[in-house]
Amino acid sequence: MTISIIGLGLIGGSMALALREADWATQVWGVENHPAHARLAQERGLADKIVSLEEALQGSEMLVLAVPVDVCLRLLPQILDDLPASSVVSDVGSTKSALCRAIVRHPRRSQFVAAHPIAGTENSGPGAAIPHLFTNKMTILCEKAASSPEAWQQVRAMYEALGMTCLEMEAEAHDQHLAYVSHLSHLTSFALALTVLEVEKSEKNIFQLAGSGFSSTARLAQSAPGMWTPIFTENRHHLLTALDEYEAQLRVLRQAIAQADGESLHKALEKANAIRSILNPS
Amino acid sequence: MTISIIGLGLIGGSMALALREADWATQVWGVENHPAHARLAQERGLADKIVSLEEALQGSEMLVLAVPVDVCLRLLPQILDDLPASSVVSDVGSTKSALCRAIVRHPRRSQFVAAHPIAGTENSGPGAAIPHLFTNKMTILCEKAASSPEAWQQVRAMYEALGMTCLEMEAEAHDQHLAYVSHLSHLTSFALALTVLEVEKSEKNIFQLAGSGFSSTARLAQSAPGMWTPIFTENRHHLLTALDEYEAQLRVLRQAIAQADGESLHKALEKANAIRSILNPS
Repeated sequence: MTISIIGLGLIGGSMALALREADWATQVWGVENHPAHARLAQERGLADKIVSLEEALQGSEMLVLAVPVDVCLRLLPQILDDLPASSVVSDVGSTKSALCRAIVRHPRRSQFVAAHPIAGTENSGPGAAIPHLFTNKMTILCEKAASSPEAWQQVRAMYEALGMTCLEMEAEAHDQHLAYVSHLSHLTSFALALTVLEVEKSEKNIFQLAGSGFSSTARLAQSAPGMWTPIFTENRHHLLTALDEYEAQLRVLRQAIAQADGESLHKALEKANAIRSILNPS
Repeated sequence: MTISIIGLGLIGGSMALALREADWATQVWGVENHPAHARLAQERGLADKIVSLEEALQGSEMLVLAVPVDVCLRLLPQILDDLPASSVVSDVGSTKSALCRAIVRHPRRSQFVAAHPIAGTENSGPGAAIPHLFTNKMTILCEKAASSPEAWQQVRAMYEALGMTCLEMEAEAHDQHLAYVSHLSHLTSFALALTVLEVEKSEKNIFQLAGSGFSSTARLAQSAPGMWTPIFTENRHHLLTALDEYEAQLRVLRQAIAQADGESLHKALEKANAIRSILNPS
């Protein structure tokens, strides 16, 4: 089988590398419209060859869209229009509802499988691709009933070949959960970076004082705006609800701090410590 | 020289280990009032011996207080009362103004050096102590004019023996800066953990979906409440100012998201990306 990855950035490039290493496909092709990225992908040997979208549609049995969610929303209906009847297409985006809604009545809907491999780093582009990004991580597959059993099984098998565990979920539930465990983390990290950068203007050398705690919480603020802007706006309904709840928690902590109410504050921090068993499952 | 570390938790225990490895002192003693912690410190060989505070005061030329900032505030004046005229005492706390104010008129003030080695992990207690916690990190020394040149030099030499770089600063400036680059990070991480834990009550298995981004931003929420409660309340003036500014940044991001204003949002995220050069200095 020939598989084409559309977009050879962090996710697509890492997937191409991993698929070649897993020897799961006969050929791994890459589609990359950005000339400098295409050159870099070629230099790094991410794919067997770089092809046009038309060549990919003609010559591959499977296509994976690894582009920002707004680009995916625009590209997927066109790809389905031109997709050979025996081919399968999937995506990797961090939002799923709008995409599934956009193609709900498309005659080739069943050849598409909505997927979200939960993996990434704060870096982007073909230079950031790494071969084992997906190993031992989780992929969420959405809207099983809308895909053909064959397409579903093929996408599932691909993620399993990458060493991932698949979880099935409706698109709406996916978007709601991801708002809490991923999108909110990124949003608060961007806000933290902006806060400290703003202060730094007047207070030189403040960053000499930053320890590993700051690095940890501000790490995600290095993430690509082109990827995160459409995720935030597309998932705004769930994200703003999550943000409401986050701000409510901040208000509780703020009040205890303002009143120097050590007892309430200690209790709240103790409650937050329960995250330990989740971050370090036994 | 014999040096005594008062409190053999993450910081004190790691310091004792590092001082023994650096062979900087003849003897490294530990004071640990918590019986289980004293046993564990002994088992792990963190110090040459465990002594009482009285023995430490009598028998050591240098003492380092590595206890929560509220305990330090209570203990330091008593230690200064009983300190032999040739001894030096220092601390490691994440807040400095209140401590320096509390002893400003103490007749032995000049034998004290206010210090803050910027190092740590989300873990606590003698079990969390690691030998190279301080290597290549920064220590801030505060209020130089209030310490004798001999005491200042001795504390500075100790941190340099641990492989640290020392920076000098007034206590008030320290507390203001740390509010931004450390205390605010911890506060927002606690709030994020509380938000997601709250949702998890009704949404089982949400954590299966958490990727490395969530782990990174929620890591600090595992930190010890006994350490962070007094830091937050003691530094509340600067911390609440930092929190005001953080919430203002969140409001700007929220508005762009609510209005699906991709252009403004993209610009803000791009601005936040400037944190990259700070987190990864060349």
